[in-house]
Amino acid sequence: MSPILLNGIGTVDDHSEYIEPEVPFKNPQIHVKNPHLDTMEEDILYHFNLGTKTHNLPEMFGDIKFVCVGGSANRMKSFAQFIHQELALPGNMDDVTDICEGTDRYSMYKVGPVLSISHGMGIPSISIMLHELIKLLHHARCIDFILFRIGTSGGVGLAPGTVVVTDKAVDCFFRAQFEQVVLGKVVTRSTELDVGVSKELLQCSSELEDVPTIIGNTMCTSDFYEGQGRLDGALCSFSTEDKLEYLRKAFNTGVRNIEMESTVFAAMCRACGIKAAVVCVTLLNRFDGDQIATPHDVLVEYQQRPQVLVAHFIKKRLGLVV
Amino acid sequence: MSPILLNGIGTVDDHSEYIEPEVPFKNPQIHVKNPHLDTMEEDILYHFNLGTKTHNLPEMFGDIKFVCVGGSANRMKSFAQFIHQELALPGNMDDVTDICEGTDRYSMYKVGPVLSISHGMGIPSISIMLHELIKLLHHARCIDFILFRIGTSGGVGLAPGTVVVTDKAVDCFFRAQFEQVVLGKVVTRSTELDVGVSKELLQCSSELEDVPTIIGNTMCTSDFYEGQGRLDGALCSFSTEDKLEYLRKAFNTGVRNIEMESTVFAAMCRACGIKAAVVCVTLLNRFDGDQIATPHDVLVEYQQRPQVLVAHFIKKRLGLVV
Repeated sequence: MSPILLNGIGTVDDHSEYIEPEVPFKNPQIHVKNPHLDTMEEDILYHFNLGTKTHNLPEMFGDIKFVCVGGSANRMKSFAQFIHQELALPGNMDDVTDICEGTDRYSMYKVGPVLSISHGMGIPSISIMLHELIKLLHHARCIDFILFRIGTSGGVGLAPGTVVVTDKAVDCFFRAQFEQVVLGKVVTRSTELDVGVSKELLQCSSELEDVPTIIGNTMCTSDFYEGQGRLDGALCSFSTEDKLEYLRKAFNTGVRNIEMESTVFAAMCRACGIKAAVVCVTLLNRFDGDQIATPHDVLVEYQQRPQVLVAHFIKKRLGLVV
Repeated sequence: MSPILLNGIGTVDDHSEYIEPEVPFKNPQIHVKNPHLDTMEEDILYHFNLGTKTHNLPEMFGDIKFVCVGGSANRMKSFAQFIHQELALPGNMDDVTDICEGTDRYSMYKVGPVLSISHGMGIPSISIMLHELIKLLHHARCIDFILFRIGTSGGVGLAPGTVVVTDKAVDCFFRAQFEQVVLGKVVTRSTELDVGVSKELLQCSSELEDVPTIIGNTMCTSDFYEGQGRLDGALCSFSTEDKLEYLRKAFNTGVRNIEMESTVFAAMCRACGIKAAVVCVTLLNRFDGDQIATPHDVLVEYQQRPQVLVAHFIKKRLGLVV
């Protein structure tokens, strides 16, 4: 609990920042940082349509060791089916069922020790999911797991199809931090990710064909058009040269791709002591254009690359490949 | 085009704000504010899986007079079916098909002059949809239409089930503005909505039974848990009293409900000269709690109230009821 937060809250005009203290990665335990949870008789995970009274969460989820999240519900279903196949699990991969069936906010699939969940687009959407996911893993008493975001992104100076494993997740001002407003006060959180997992992912990529991978910074924006310097939105007040100047600045600070979820993902995982990595494929090189005009089948192949890479990581960790 | 924007862009540490000039509602024309669009040979509306070369947008959408958007894909399909029934259109209401079938980012249904689209959760998600929707309506040469957001929200000092028609959409500091970052520079936009449409909606509610409706301010946050003062997230560093103090402050500034999309919705519609309204039902009274524990069938009935209200508005405008 932060005395600065507790004392300073509520003055509407006081947007002063409070930088939360660093939390070392406390693997293997997960740390929900909320003393109120212990006092609740029941916890309804509303957007998952799950709850502590209605579901036996330790029985349903207690053996989870890898959690993979991504924007699209269809893609996360495909990933669950792919992992089913890769881990050579019994049963038919087409039989995976959506655990969040009663709601259309998110989709969730469990395949052996792997949980695959969709999170929609943007920081608020993934943030709701992460709050409920972290509580779910806490209630289920999961230990020693790794959380991956596998997604799509725009590339900055990279050939389309390149996979970027995120070094630092940075905001639209190129700062490695996430600003969370809590009761009208800005709280700044670190977006540092787990270096060991990133390096292990890069090593995995070198053992695969056709998954070109680099480690670089990932810029996270709250808007796909104006916020990422696209010239093709409904609103645009800048020139092509302005756009390119902004992208060059981003590149010079180490940014290699742009997406819309990595900072809050990194910040929440770090705050709760969860080992996490962000693995996104680039669908285009933003220096060359803004529209995604690549043929559908090529895009589908690109989108499989983060899945193939993370699947290889999981199989190695499980001792299924050397 | 703003000279301040064009000249000031790119200095990373310069987050100075630029307040865009007010645009009066330029009904009936829609104004995409992007000179680059005219120079594009093709416009791919990527997240709708539609495009100007692959689809005849004027033929598909030219007769649209009412656009209704909401977070959940299932709910927006139900709304399309409900409107089909209410307008007594020919054919079977169960046959409405998703125009965005090739993607799972958004769902879209057209029923006579009404378009029903899902936008997911949070400002970034609805913002992507709005950019592509506004371009779609522009390409389709639609004129004289009204845009409604029909959604769910947390109530502030209201009985659950009350419908709030938004007067001012305010941010988490209770300011009636939306901050859009454009190439690393903060641009501030007005979130004023159309007063005439709001009043007409309130009048409509008085002609209906069981749709208790008020006009009030709507607070839009980027987070469902810490950002709205909930005590039940994975992270919470404040006390019950801190939470209640924040909600009381919100109430005293005129806030009657809290959701996650209204500011950018209002700002983009205003910037493009589109008449728009926000109509959200409250699922709980936040002074009484944080968890949504209301029985499913009651929630379903609550969620129908904005639909019933907007359907009545549409029928009156079309002369189907007096």
